[in-house]
Amino acid sequence: RIDGDRLWDSLMEMAKIGPGVAGGNNRQTLTDEDAEGRALFKSWCEDAGCTMGLDTMGNMFARREGTDPDALPVYVGSHLDTQPTGGKYDGVLGVLGGLELVRSLNDLGIKTRHPIVVTNWTNEEGTRFAPAMLASGVFAGVHAQDWAEAREDAEGKRFGDELDRIGWRGEEPVGDRKMHAFFELHIEQGPILEAEKKDIGVVTHGQGLWWLQVTLTGKDAHTGSTPMEMRVNAGLGMARITEAVHKIAMDHLPNAVGAVGQANVYPNSRNVIPGKAVFTIDFRSPDLDKLNSMRARLESEAADIAKDLGLGIEIEPVGHFDPVTFDEACVSAVRDAADRLGYSHRDIVSGAGHDACWINQVAPTAMVMCPCVDGLSHNEAEEISKEWAKAGADVLLHAVVETAEI
Amino acid sequence: RIDGDRLWDSLMEMAKIGPGVAGGNNRQTLTDEDAEGRALFKSWCEDAGCTMGLDTMGNMFARREGTDPDALPVYVGSHLDTQPTGGKYDGVLGVLGGLELVRSLNDLGIKTRHPIVVTNWTNEEGTRFAPAMLASGVFAGVHAQDWAEAREDAEGKRFGDELDRIGWRGEEPVGDRKMHAFFELHIEQGPILEAEKKDIGVVTHGQGLWWLQVTLTGKDAHTGSTPMEMRVNAGLGMARITEAVHKIAMDHLPNAVGAVGQANVYPNSRNVIPGKAVFTIDFRSPDLDKLNSMRARLESEAADIAKDLGLGIEIEPVGHFDPVTFDEACVSAVRDAADRLGYSHRDIVSGAGHDACWINQVAPTAMVMCPCVDGLSHNEAEEISKEWAKAGADVLLHAVVETAEI
Ligand SMILES: NC(=O)NCCC(=O)O
Ligand SMILES: NC(=O)NCCC(=O)O
Repeated sequence: RIDGDRLWDSLMEMAKIGPGVAGGNNRQTLTDEDAEGRALFKSWCEDAGCTMGLDTMGNMFARREGTDPDALPVYVGSHLDTQPTGGKYDGVLGVLGGLELVRSLNDLGIKTRHPIVVTNWTNEEGTRFAPAMLASGVFAGVHAQDWAEAREDAEGKRFGDELDRIGWRGEEPVGDRKMHAFFELHIEQGPILEAEKKDIGVVTHGQGLWWLQVTLTGKDAHTGSTPMEMRVNAGLGMARITEAVHKIAMDHLPNAVGAVGQANVYPNSRNVIPGKAVFTIDFRSPDLDKLNSMRARLESEAADIAKDLGLGIEIEPVGHFDPVTFDEACVSAVRDAADRLGYSHRDIVSGAGHDACWINQVAPTAMVMCPCVDGLSHNEAEEISKEWAKAGADVLLHAVVETAEI
Repeated sequence: RIDGDRLWDSLMEMAKIGPGVAGGNNRQTLTDEDAEGRALFKSWCEDAGCTMGLDTMGNMFARREGTDPDALPVYVGSHLDTQPTGGKYDGVLGVLGGLELVRSLNDLGIKTRHPIVVTNWTNEEGTRFAPAMLASGVFAGVHAQDWAEAREDAEGKRFGDELDRIGWRGEEPVGDRKMHAFFELHIEQGPILEAEKKDIGVVTHGQGLWWLQVTLTGKDAHTGSTPMEMRVNAGLGMARITEAVHKIAMDHLPNAVGAVGQANVYPNSRNVIPGKAVFTIDFRSPDLDKLNSMRARLESEAADIAKDLGLGIEIEPVGHFDPVTFDEACVSAVRDAADRLGYSHRDIVSGAGHDACWINQVAPTAMVMCPCVDGLSHNEAEEISKEWAKAGADVLLHAVVETAEI
């Protein structure tokens, strides 16, 4: 079993970097705070006897040697970056849970045949640079690296330039590593495990996603002196499409969600009818047909709304993955570990996207989930108990050790 | 008659300060660009033989002496600040039209019994610091100066601090000046004069306004893993209230308008259901009953929308004026001047708010309007012809000279 207190202390120590405004974290990818978090993680890994690899997307790989020089490593990990108003566990638990696993093996003097590598994937959150899971996507060959490096944040700063600026670009080519398997521990970010009082979620599938960025073009004009019939109001178009997104998701229940998370009008002045609106839609479903049907219906309804209001419209997909089925053997290793340790568990579909969803395309992959209070995540109030964190990391330890072989 | 070329040249010269991105201007109040525009105006006024007064709200008063030491001055003017994506004429025409009037009187060697004062009112636009017409409102005793100075911009900077920072706070107490009359020349910012091919709008009334700032409070949560029925989506609430504003204005036609100009969701991240939305509603009507009925209906419908979605709601009025009736004698002076000069004209209601609306509470006031292309304003593409500008300034000259007496 892992050391639950040590894991918790490390979580609390990491949370001091990039504190939020309400008890959580703002340690967005490729900021100075991200660099600081990386440095702390690196020093901890080196203290635990690992060597640190770094690729040209900034992905970090802390390696604990195995006994068989020919055996491919078993990878574990997640991400250290957070939402602008994020929690202390989303991603971080998976990285520091991996580190705790290494520390525990050291304490117990256990050697595994396969090496173990603890990973921190760059820009999982996708808030600053869309899409989410950017660097694991490049690793898995889903995105071209040039394209990924050219992604821009809201201020027009490029991913590649920001990676250089914070000093965390390595020399290792991205995606050259071969994996024996990949395991990711993560908080559920949803309400199911807590409601059903389960210690562990055995993640069998992941939802698919469409992120659609909509740009509506109207005409800036004075809110007072422009008659109603002369207005070309992009903000009104955004409002109507936001309502359509909600309606479409509701019509696809169960197993479908949809919302507008990012919404901006221009020039954003009290007495100017918005001449432009830019916003993103997030549709998800574990069912590929539903996922694509939501997108298709939205595109058609949004076009009608725009036409009705005289607005120009462009819809650009800025994030996408199909629903994921994780590797049967790895999933069984997680389920068996939970059984063996006596933790209550259930199979579960991940509502969120994770680096594991991309790595699943290039290596046998599975995920371990632990509950979180009220299912709340992407919120500074995100919370878990020390016991939940320990249970998740125990299961991770056992699944990894079984796969890496003693 | 005034010198149309000289007026136009000054307009183009001023437009070089704080250029926009699309041919217009971004010279928002109390920015460095505002300071630069003020300095240019001051130097022009001094070249024209005026002395410059400056009050503690940064209002500028360029005075041309009259022949009667006991006669109160006739004031003219408007504002030099612009929208973030504003035009070259909104406000500026009224200030530089006033300066051109002084220059023309100098050229003609005409002395008036009453002094003439050309004014630049601080923060007319209200974009950076709500409400609009802030400093003329303090001058007219509508707002307390302390309250005005404490107004904050989106970055939390205070009006008073920014006024000090740009170095344009004077020592003269605000509102001590007594006026014989006030005239403001302004572009229409609407489509009527151009459509009816009138050179001049004789402004008899101004619309009343309510600016309502709405804050909705929901719960930040993950867009993927939060089931639809657990969401408390402030962005969806904003969308529904935006639609309600539109519907309410349409139901109050004719002589009513309504829109949401400023709209922000938090944390504004693609994969976070907005936990907060802050936006402003702009309702206007020349009919006080309609104006108040729109506000009342919105407050009731917005409360229902919030309740339905489980959102907290606060509605704060951040700008208000009742419909305005301008002074009969001043309005006649404008109408007579247009007649005498042979310009086509019609009586008109101002769709926008203007400094004149507040000054009307403390002095006999009227306004002169000239057409603008497509009725477009609060847009960088705002345009007028040199002839329209000249006609407006000619009428201003004649109305002022008649009132200031030769
Ligand atoms: N786990 C997580 O929040 N990942 C970010 C990508 C997503 O929105 O699902
Ligand atoms: N004229 C003008 O645009 N003034 C700003 C205040 C308003 O929105 O009416």
